[in-house]
Amino acid sequence: MAQEIERKFLIDQTHPEVTALMQTKGSHIKQGYIMSDPKGVVRVRRMDDKAYLTIKGPNTGITRDEFEYQIPVEHAEHLLATMCSKIIEKQRYAYPLENGHFAEVDVFPQIDLWLAEVELPTKDTDFQKPDWFRKEVSTDPYYFNNNIAKRI
Amino acid sequence: MAQEIERKFLIDQTHPEVTALMQTKGSHIKQGYIMSDPKGVVRVRRMDDKAYLTIKGPNTGITRDEFEYQIPVEHAEHLLATMCSKIIEKQRYAYPLENGHFAEVDVFPQIDLWLAEVELPTKDTDFQKPDWFRKEVSTDPYYFNNNIAKRI
Repeated sequence: MAQEIERKFLIDQTHPEVTALMQTKGSHIKQGYIMSDPKGVVRVRRMDDKAYLTIKGPNTGITRDEFEYQIPVEHAEHLLATMCSKIIEKQRYAYPLENGHFAEVDVFPQIDLWLAEVELPTKDTDFQKPDWFRKEVSTDPYYFNNNIAKRI
Repeated sequence: MAQEIERKFLIDQTHPEVTALMQTKGSHIKQGYIMSDPKGVVRVRRMDDKAYLTIKGPNTGITRDEFEYQIPVEHAEHLLATMCSKIIEKQRYAYPLENGHFAEVDVFPQIDLWLAEVELPTKDTDFQKPDWFRKEVSTDPYYFNNNIAKRI
């Protein structure tokens, strides 16, 4: 078991640092939800040439239980095709922060949404925000991945 | 991916073969459902000292997609405690049949239900039924595990 502690931010898409980041390789992510309700989430994710099945418990603020298992890519493709209604596609870019932290910038081309996420070891861990971070949306359900899926 | 082809039968609990089977070791199974609806099933199972996460597609007759992944026992216990409402406990006994097939006899002590299941490679595979098999209930939703859970 892991606990996921994640903070999410809107970003300034026009900032030169972001423009430079978009020139890096990034990872292509395709994901869908077998289940997605207030009790929890069962997610299937294809990421480049790997695939994962992830169980998440209910959200409590910025903390939630998360269990992730690598599964064969062909299982993921079958589950995405047969048991997931909406499929999210996004490009993910890694941006190193100070003290070993890093941000993941997700670009959702289907709905022109750009989000930065920072995973932290504890709820109270502080980190240095890049100056292209804008409003924090960590606890705003509008930006939960399962709700983003509904807008796609 | 595997396809699960499973036939289920009620059994004669008083038959001497069944009485003898009950003297064998068997496996203790504890399982619950993160999701269980017509679209599919996400099941957590603890079986003796191992644990599994299983995704099943919708039922189509006696055939359904099934993906099973071994997971750490402590993950399973956490998922059972936090994300599964009803927990089924059952004792499972293996009974060899002819031609390499075998039956699994499940005893559900919480509701005094005894069921035999036979997994088969194809829908049309025939097998020799033991004389303590009674009515076939393969397609009767009353005997689906997720519905049995609701009666516990």
